[in-house]
Formats: sequence, C-alpha cells, structure tokens
Amino acid sequence: MAKRLSSTPKQDGFRMPGEFEEHAKTWMFWPERTDNWRLGAKPAQKAFVEVATAISKFEPVTMCVSNNQYSNAREMLPDHIRVVEISNDDSWARDMGPSFVVNDKGVVRGVDWEFNAWGGLVDGLYFPWDKDDQAAEKICEIENIDSYRSQGFVLEGGSIHVDGEGTCIVTEACLLSEGRNPDLSKEEIEDKLKTYLNVEKVIWLKNGIYLDETNEHVDNIIQIARPGVVLLAWTDDKNDPQYELSKSAYDVLKHETDAKGRHFEIHKVHIPSNVLITKEESEGVDKVDGTLPRQEGDRLAASYVNFYIVNGGVIFPKFGDEIHDQLAEEVLNKVFPERDVVGVYAREILLGGGNIHCITQQQPQGKK
Amino acid sequence: MAKRLSSTPKQDGFRMPGEFEEHAKTWMFWPERTDNWRLGAKPAQKAFVEVATAISKFEPVTMCVSNNQYSNAREMLPDHIRVVEISNDDSWARDMGPSFVVNDKGVVRGVDWEFNAWGGLVDGLYFPWDKDDQAAEKICEIENIDSYRSQGFVLEGGSIHVDGEGTCIVTEACLLSEGRNPDLSKEEIEDKLKTYLNVEKVIWLKNGIYLDETNEHVDNIIQIARPGVVLLAWTDDKNDPQYELSKSAYDVLKHETDAKGRHFEIHKVHIPSNVLITKEESEGVDKVDGTLPRQEGDRLAASYVNFYIVNGGVIFPKFGDEIHDQLAEEVLNKVFPERDVVGVYAREILLGGGNIHCITQQQPQGKK
Repeated sequence: MAKRLSSTPKQDGFRMPGEFEEHAKTWMFWPERTDNWRLGAKPAQKAFVEVATAISKFEPVTMCVSNNQYSNAREMLPDHIRVVEISNDDSWARDMGPSFVVNDKGVVRGVDWEFNAWGGLVDGLYFPWDKDDQAAEKICEIENIDSYRSQGFVLEGGSIHVDGEGTCIVTEACLLSEGRNPDLSKEEIEDKLKTYLNVEKVIWLKNGIYLDETNEHVDNIIQIARPGVVLLAWTDDKNDPQYELSKSAYDVLKHETDAKGRHFEIHKVHIPSNVLITKEESEGVDKVDGTLPRQEGDRLAASYVNFYIVNGGVIFPKFGDEIHDQLAEEVLNKVFPERDVVGVYAREILLGGGNIHCITQQQPQGKK
Repeated sequence: MAKRLSSTPKQDGFRMPGEFEEHAKTWMFWPERTDNWRLGAKPAQKAFVEVATAISKFEPVTMCVSNNQYSNAREMLPDHIRVVEISNDDSWARDMGPSFVVNDKGVVRGVDWEFNAWGGLVDGLYFPWDKDDQAAEKICEIENIDSYRSQGFVLEGGSIHVDGEGTCIVTEACLLSEGRNPDLSKEEIEDKLKTYLNVEKVIWLKNGIYLDETNEHVDNIIQIARPGVVLLAWTDDKNDPQYELSKSAYDVLKHETDAKGRHFEIHKVHIPSNVLITKEESEGVDKVDGTLPRQEGDRLAASYVNFYIVNGGVIFPKFGDEIHDQLAEEVLNKVFPERDVVGVYAREILLGGGNIHCITQQQPQGKK
C-alpha cells in the first residue's frame, strides 16, 4: 500500500504542519542501549512510560520496540498504548521518525530523512545507525503511508521547526555541521528544506543549547507555539556560556519576520540551574568505544523548551529545580491558555542526551 | 489500544468465521531460515512473492519480516504489499498467526494460541520458537485488535478447520499428539476448541497426509469450501500409504453431520504423484542439530487441498505434475464457480514443510 515516491513534497503540494495542528497519534521508541542509558535503561524506560502515559491522555501513542525488549515494554506500558516491533539503535523518534507532511485534501505522507546518528563518522554519537535509518520507512509501512526519501541529504527531525505556514527555523551549528552534508552549501541546504518541507522561508539561528551533543538542535532552544509565537530557552546569567547563544537567537528572531511577514512574539523560558551528571549516574552506563561517554560532572543540555505539543495539551520536562520548573510552567500556561500543561520529571531522559520533544513524533490527523 | 482479554470468545459471543467469508486482509511471514529453506531461502522467497502477489489481486496482503530480511523483502515484493517488521523463527502464518474471531457487530478479535513449533521438545521441528509464539500478539497490536491467549493450550491454526456455523474439523494424529497437550484428554481438548472457536461440534478425522511433519494437520487433507461442502485429498492407488488415511477420513465425513445437521458434500482431489526431495535440494539446506533434516529421497506431503480461499478467488499449489495439477484445477473450478481459481507453482514452499494454506492467515473483514 505504501509507496516510495520519487517526487518531492513541494512538487506534490504537501507541507509539514505545525506541531500545534491536530495529531492522529504520537510515535515513540523504547530506550534500551546500555551504553547510553544507565542501569540497563530501566530508569529511562520508566520515564518513557510516564511521558507516553501523559501523552496518551490527549491522543493515541504507539511505542516502537525491538524484539528483545518487546515483552518488557508491553508489560511496563498501559494496555491502551500500542506496542509495535521496530528494531532500532536508540530511541529518538523525533530524529529517526518520518516528518509527516499533508496536502489540502488531508492526505498524509512521510519524509524519511537520511539519518547518520548526528554526524556519522565525523562526530556521530554511536555506530552503527542502520536500524534507526530504516525506522521511518517501517513506520510509514505500518500506517500504509507513502513516503519520500531525502536521498543524499542528512537531517534529523529535531533540527527543524516549522510553523505550518511557510516558515522553518534551524541552527547553523547543526545544519552546517561537518558530519551531515559537508558537500552542500548553506543555500543548497536551504533549498532542500524548501523542497522537502514545502516552506518559503528558512530562518537561521546561529546556535542552540550549550554542549548539546546533537550539534545544537533547534528543538532544544526554541519551540513554536503557533504561527508568529516562539518560546526561547533563556538565561539571565551573563556569565553562563548559554547567555550569548540565547541572546544571539533572540536578536535574530527579534529582527526577522516569518514567511507571512509577521514579527515574532518571543517568550523567554529560563533554563534550569546547571544539571551535571553525578558519579552514580556515570557509573551506571556501559563504556563502549564509539559511543559518546557519560562522564561525571559533564553539564547536560537541559532546557524546558524541549516540550511537546499534543491535542489539547503540552507535555514539558521538569528537572527538580523548583524555581525554574515553576517558572517554565507559568510561561507555558500563559502561552497556551487553551491547553493543559503537564510536567513530567525528565532527568533520566536528559541523561541520554535529549528530552521530551526529542523522543516524540507527531503524525498529523489528515482526513480519514 | 489492544487488550489481552482474560475472558474467552465463547463467553463474549465471538466465533471464528469460515475462510470463505469476507477478508479484510491476508497475513504472511517471510521465509529466511537456511536450515529449512534451501540456498539461503532465495527460491522460497520467490515463491512467497508469487503467492503474495497472487493474493494481492483479490485483497490486501501484509508480509511480516525480520529486521535482517526487511530491505530484501521490501525490494522483492511489489509496492502495494505492506511489509512490517516482526521477528520470527520461521514463516508459517497459519500456525503462528492469530485465529481471528468476530461477533455479531463485526468486531474482530484474535485468538493467540500457545505455539511450540509442532511438538515442542517431544517432536517439534526446530528450537527455539519464542519469536513465533509472540507473532500473533504483535499482529494484534499493529491492528489494534484485542486478543485472547490460550494459556496452557497448544495449537496451530493449520490443525483446525471451521465452517463458521458451529463446526470444527481436526485430526487425532495432530491434536492428540504427545508434543502438544499431553495432559489434556480428548474431551478436554474438544472443550478448548469449543471455548476458543465458539463451535458446537468437533469432528475428528484420524489422520492427515502421510509423512506430514506437522503430525498431520487437517489443512493438508481437507478444506471447507462453504458450510456442508468439503474437499478431501485423495488417491486411487490402494498401494499408496495415503490411501488408508484418505479412505478413513472419507468414511468419517460420509457418516458425520455438521453442527447444523447437514451431511457433507465431499469432493475428492487426487494428490500428485510422489514428490521426493532431490539430492540438489537436500544439499542446499544447512544441517543444524535440532532442526528437522531435509534428506534426499524423502517423500513430501504434497496435497492440493492446502489451498487458500481469498475474496473472490482461490490460490492453489501446483507441483509440475501436469495431469494432477489439471485435475485439481478442474475440481476447484467446479466447487468454486463464483471464484477465480489461480494456481501457483509451489514446490519450494512444499520443500519447507507446508503449502499455500500454511503460509497464509486471513483477517476477517468485520465492520468498520
């Protein structure tokens, strides 16, 4: 039923909707690799269950799980969460999953990006990544959804944000990184985004979050609440290396307009106080050559804007930093008065290198 | 979405429909184990593609494939056949898959039989079989279909035939075999069938096809065309060991009535001339301790009634025995005047121990 299309979304009149548009369901992947997730991934699995359960109060969730972990995942997850077998190298649905696009008639298709574990042999986070790279195709097959393959163009879903109305926001640090598309110029990359997401304007931030191992994905420094409204990870501490990064992003957004010519309404969301890997946390992770190590004292790229918008809700990460957790919740409640704002304690997800937005992927509703 | 139910189909008013009732789709599994399928399973894969393609002209087909074979299967199969990842130990959808049941409202559920590779540690055909045993649950999860697990009761879908109107036909050779449910009496087994299939009457044939390695599954010796109409594998050669087996089945069916009190209309389908494994075929199979060997000169359990009924069609196996291939086609055309009868050359499937009915599983239409 599902075809691999040789055309492009732009040619066919398909666009990527904003995350705030209606979803059919959410896709997630089950964490298990013991060289990234401490203690056999058991604490992370519990956190993923909490996130999945929180989302499932707003929309259906499908969890993709390897054969080895299938029974365990099925047992740990509530009945109403669908569990399907998809082999994987790790559990970042945002980056491995398809970016779904829709047309005016509500037909849904997938964009299956070439994936190389955030930098391939240059500065990728693990090797190999062939199972991850095949995951998007498998999701589209399960759903009988036709897909486009971005042959010769490497991208992760977490490195783009769209407003569904012609605008895409990215970071130079990530999209111009040496490990992804070294042979493409900035203009050529912009052209790929316009082709596969069917956007008219690409806004380039310089950076993302300090020490973000994804080469600073945009989805850790901003989120788009709705067209023209952006949330920005922020710090007031001018001595924090994050300050310059956030300030620079603020300046770009302040002076830019989106594809429709709107100026951005920018909501700052203060990052939590430094989150460092503890000795105990570091010791729980297998040491494996070729996988990014998790060392005691390393600063984690903690950011509240790595939240996920669901039908009628917002699921955001909490870090046990009471002051900033509460400030983030207040901003979210202000920006999303029409949605329920739900916090989930997410330190265990952050320890693996990302957060709630990174481990989720929305499939738009389309028409039935 | 999919629940594991602790009740039974009988309690809940669900029955297994006849194969001739309308299907939503067909499930198959991709062959790959090189200790069962010769030459790296390549010839078998081609035969499975032919069967899947033939079925897909009548109804949708989903092929379940391990991660290792996913790309190859996706490449070899036509686009319109859905390919989903499900780990497996071998490729017998009839036996590993769920037996689907429906209720009056058209709700579809699955019966997930306990599976032990046709006899477990007594006379099973390979070890281990844990992936096969989990396949039915995974299919139900993909489809969001609730399922029953036959805890403590081992059965394969190929060892039962139902008419959808209260009758089930089985063989004693298989259902009373030592490797399946040695602690259950014949009456207790009959009771399980009545509970899980929601039938009123179980008809016991003594045997199936001579040397059938499944302990003589019923689906290799008979098929039910519609309520009251049965096709029976037959030989006129009284010196063939099959003669007594078929004659005995004929006598049972001739004197029995079905659950509705109907006498059976019996159509004999002559088996092909002896099909023996060649030296070349035997040499193409890996020799592995614990897996049934494929030895030169071994007689295969070839039978035309191992055909599969699809929406508007019948897909039956041909063996290159021109006389009997043609006779079988004539009988099928007579019994199914309203369906297209399609033959597929199936020697490569037979070499693995079964045939077209064994490698397919219908999911009934239900209501949407």
